[in-house]
This record gives sequence, C-alpha cells and structure tokens, in this order.
Amino acid sequence: MSKNPVVIEVTRGPLVESRHEGIAAVVRPDGTVVESWGDIDDRILPRSANKPIQAMAFVESGAVEKFGLGNEHIALACASHSGENRHVETVRAWLGKIGLGEDDLECGTHPPRLQASIEALVRENARPTPAFNNCSGKHSGFLSTAVAYGEPTRGYIKYDHPVQRRLRAVMSDLCGSNADDFAYGTDGCGIPTLATPLKLLARAMASMAEPSRLSNKHAEAAGRIRTAMNAEPFMMGGTGSFGTRINQALPGVAQVKGGAEGVFCGMLPTLGFGIALKMWDGAGRAAEVAMATILGHLGVLPGERREELLHPPVKNVVGLLVGEMRPAKSWLG
Amino acid sequence: MSKNPVVIEVTRGPLVESRHEGIAAVVRPDGTVVESWGDIDDRILPRSANKPIQAMAFVESGAVEKFGLGNEHIALACASHSGENRHVETVRAWLGKIGLGEDDLECGTHPPRLQASIEALVRENARPTPAFNNCSGKHSGFLSTAVAYGEPTRGYIKYDHPVQRRLRAVMSDLCGSNADDFAYGTDGCGIPTLATPLKLLARAMASMAEPSRLSNKHAEAAGRIRTAMNAEPFMMGGTGSFGTRINQALPGVAQVKGGAEGVFCGMLPTLGFGIALKMWDGAGRAAEVAMATILGHLGVLPGERREELLHPPVKNVVGLLVGEMRPAKSWLG
Repeated sequence: MSKNPVVIEVTRGPLVESRHEGIAAVVRPDGTVVESWGDIDDRILPRSANKPIQAMAFVESGAVEKFGLGNEHIALACASHSGENRHVETVRAWLGKIGLGEDDLECGTHPPRLQASIEALVRENARPTPAFNNCSGKHSGFLSTAVAYGEPTRGYIKYDHPVQRRLRAVMSDLCGSNADDFAYGTDGCGIPTLATPLKLLARAMASMAEPSRLSNKHAEAAGRIRTAMNAEPFMMGGTGSFGTRINQALPGVAQVKGGAEGVFCGMLPTLGFGIALKMWDGAGRAAEVAMATILGHLGVLPGERREELLHPPVKNVVGLLVGEMRPAKSWLG
Repeated sequence: MSKNPVVIEVTRGPLVESRHEGIAAVVRPDGTVVESWGDIDDRILPRSANKPIQAMAFVESGAVEKFGLGNEHIALACASHSGENRHVETVRAWLGKIGLGEDDLECGTHPPRLQASIEALVRENARPTPAFNNCSGKHSGFLSTAVAYGEPTRGYIKYDHPVQRRLRAVMSDLCGSNADDFAYGTDGCGIPTLATPLKLLARAMASMAEPSRLSNKHAEAAGRIRTAMNAEPFMMGGTGSFGTRINQALPGVAQVKGGAEGVFCGMLPTLGFGIALKMWDGAGRAAEVAMATILGHLGVLPGERREELLHPPVKNVVGLLVGEMRPAKSWLG
C-alpha cells in the first residue's frame, strides 16, 4: 500500500520534458486493496476500459449461441478496435446474423486508426461507416442482446433502455455497490459512462478475474470473456496496439483493456487481482506505461518485451532515439 | 503574482474527467515578472514555441531581401504548419529561390495534419515529402541563412553548425542569459532544443514584443517577425489551428506560437509583455485554453470568440456536446 501517486516521465535528452500523474489500485474480489497509489476513492469515468464488464450481459443473454457467434465476436464486444479489415468485416457479418445492419449502430462514424486503413478507403473511393467506429463491436453486442431478449433496438444507448439497465445491474454485482446511484456522463459512442470510484472499478475487474464469489451465470460469462480476450487479441485493438500485445503475450495470465482519457483496467486470474488506473491528464501513452509497470511489479510482465513496454522509446521524425518514457523513481521506477 | 499552478479542467457530464497542470509567466523585457503561476524557474524545452526567436537570425541575415522573400516566408519560418497546399507550394518555391530543393531539408517527412490533405495525396498517388513537415518553413529559413552567409548547408541542424550557434547568440541577447550554457535535447525536426527556465523564455518573447532595449538589428527583425505573424496567420498553422485564429484576430496586439508537449509563447507589443507557458503533461489542448485564459486575463482576448476559446466544447463522435474545457477555479476560472 502506498499513497504516492502514479508518475510517468517523458524524457528528451537530459531533461524530463513532461510528466503524467495518476491513481491506480490492485484489488481482490472481496474489495481488499492489495496495493494502491494516489487516492483510489476518487471517481473516474471508465470510458472504454470497462468494455469487458459491459460484455457480460451480452454473453449472459445467450446471444452467442443463438446467433452462432464465437470468441472473435466476444473479443470485439470488449474491444476498441482500429477499424482494420478484419474488424469491419466481422462486425458487418455479425450484424447480418442478427438481422440488422450498420444503420442500427448508434455509435456514429469516425475514420480508422491507421494511416494504411485511411489510405485504403480513399483508394476504394469509400467513406468510413459505423462499423469502422472503434466501439462497433461493443454496440453490436448491445444490439445482439436486445434482439435476443426481443426488445426494441432503437435507443439502446439511452440510460433507461433495458440494455443499459442490465449493464448497471452487472456492474453493481461485480463492484459491490449500486451502480444506479452513480452519476454519469455521455461516452464518445453515446452510452452513459458511470462515475465510478477507482477502487470499485478495480474490484469489478477482480470479480471477473476470480469469479468464485459471483453467481454461476456471472462466473461463466466472465470466464468466457477472459478466454476470448486472450484468444483473439487482434480483435481487442489491432496492429501495434498495447492491449493487443499484452493480451497476446499473457494468455490465461492477464486480460487488459484501455479507455479514452488515460484509463486502463486489467484482470489477473492467476493472482486473483483486478487492476484499474487513471492518468489525471487523460494521456493514453502514460496509462500504457503505468499498466506495464504494474504488471511488471506484480511479476507477470513477459520477459522478452519487458524493456520495450516499461521504457518505450521517444523518437523524432527521422526515427532518431531522443528520449524515453519511464515510471518515475518516486513511484515504481 | 501567484504561485498557484495553471490548471485546466476537462469535464464530461457532471464530472471533471481530466485535468492538466502547468506553469506560466508574463514578463517584461527587463526580466520583471508581471504575473506567474507555478515555479517559473523550472526548465522546459521550448520546442516549436520559440520558432519566432529562431527566425530572428534568418531575418537579420538579409536573406529576405537577397532572395526576394516576404511576409509569407517569414511567417512560415515561425510556423508549425499543417502541410496544406499553400504551405507546401510556398516552401518548394522558396527552396528554388535559394538554389536548393527538398532533399536539402534535414527535418524528415511526416504526413500532413488534416484528413483532407492526407486523402488528396492518396488520390494523386503521391507521398508526403519533407516540405510537408510542419517545420519545413523554419528549416527553409535555416537553409536561407546558411546560403546568405556562404556557409555549407549540410548538417545545419547540428549543435555546432553556424546556423545553430547564431540561434543561441540571439536567444542569449533576448533572454539575458548565455544560451550556450543551457543543456539541450533533440527536437522532433532534429535541431537542438534548449532547456530554458520558463521565466527566461517569457523574457525573450517580451524582448521581441517591446524591443527598445535591443540592438537596432534585433529590434528591426523582431518588428518584421511580429508583422509577418499577424499578416500571414494561415502560414503560422493552417485551417482551424488555434495559433492561426489568434494571430488573425489580434493584429498588432498579440503574436502567439505553440510547440509540442504543451508549450505556448506569446508577444504582447501594446502591453510590452512576453508570455510563456508549459503544461507539464505535454497536452496541447490544455496549452491552448491556458493561453486563451491568460490573454483574456490581460484584457486582449477578442470578444466575439471569447467563450469558444476559453471554454472549448468537448463533443462525442456524433457531435453531441458532452463536456467542456475550462480554467479551474483555483487558477483563473
């Protein structure tokens, strides 16, 4: 236990040019705090980092069996994907299986993440569609759940739609607190994002990592989600993404998911821990180094990529190494 | 005077989702501190925010007259441009005027900033070239200076090349301290970026804003640079950029320039002040709100765009207003 905050430094030459501060918690399913940095009672917006929690209701609905879906779809429901071909095509085929189309997605449209994907679209004289949205898998999961339960799909992003009510019910069970009492903002993709004390977000991840205290239904869904995240790491992010690399490198050991504005969550089933962290400035680059540092601190970081994950290089335009990112000495450096 | 740091908040719904902390100084040419927030003796890397200072040696070299250049070239030498057509074409023509070409630029190549520019390149089946680099105007200024003085151009980005020595000599004169004593890192475009106490960076900007203490040569160059920044605001950034908007809106009153990793500088000739600020996490979005806030605090923010600059909206993918950025109450909010 520590109250020192998370601090990630960015160096350039002899100077620490920039620094990022945050909070992090490692928690057991019963809510016991294993380690913490900063004030973990502070409320944060989990953004996309809690997509694995949001996928629970989808898996529990029976939609996976009903519509002939598999690990790639469960992983996509937990993903912030990069809009590469396999992501987009899988989402389109999935929507076809449930009798819907891209027009039913209420997440909006944004360009794919990678330059190569953007260029490919231009060459095909095509525009991005809602399936390119990094959240399109999660939203396809929401739609699948509504269809499986015979609910109207229109407005599934609204706070009072049964789809969103179920997310809060699951969250309440996992974190041990009534999520209906949480304030909320609107996420990038239009759904409510719940103001959650960081400690409770970590506890929810711990409950998924080690679900023996949960109902059989929850426990089974959590296991299937963890399996899918490791089995289909490309679906979790895409080419070069930190989440894809970690989920690929640590099958059965760690399942991680990041979110906008510097949030990262993780499940460590072999240790029975959940992790949640938030960089206060919203910096994703720092959240990744912080997650790698905590995984290393807990002894689960893969040896071969350890250095690259803990001290990512800072390069300039011509590719020259001009600095690095690193955990500060005041934290775990 | 205040020691409270700069704090910019990012809200989403009822919550402050993220926050950015930094330091800022408003200084007179004699080094008197008008106002300060945070520890302004801390050293920062100015990155591109000191391009107007770096343009001094270019203007003083006589290259502008010698090669038939004008305000658009001086502005480009001070700019981090977006690689739009007018930027790229002006740089290419400029290099032709001095008998050189894009191969002589040592800044490297990166894609243009705007999606439309990227798409246009793909449609033309073209790749970005060094002229697209946001620093290509500054580097063309460096090359012009070397050619004007009859120096070898190769290696003009190196610490000991006469081009870089002159930058340090000018900086020393403007900030009142020997810049040869400053530690340095390597900037994104390959040149040295000098570790500068924030207070001295603000003093250098003040010296350019109100140059009566400087040599005639320096004073004249500073005046021409200020004029060019206001006369060619598009060249200073490009479509939608904060710097372009401010330089356009406040002719004769303010000339501002941002840099990577959350740095922003400004000259206020009518007040005789220089401004420098650094957000410690490197967030450009916060540096812009901080600069707007300081301009508002000093009474020079344009009325019509005041709200949009001080409280930029946070929108989600479908364009819904979900939050805002703002100065914290603990600072100037």
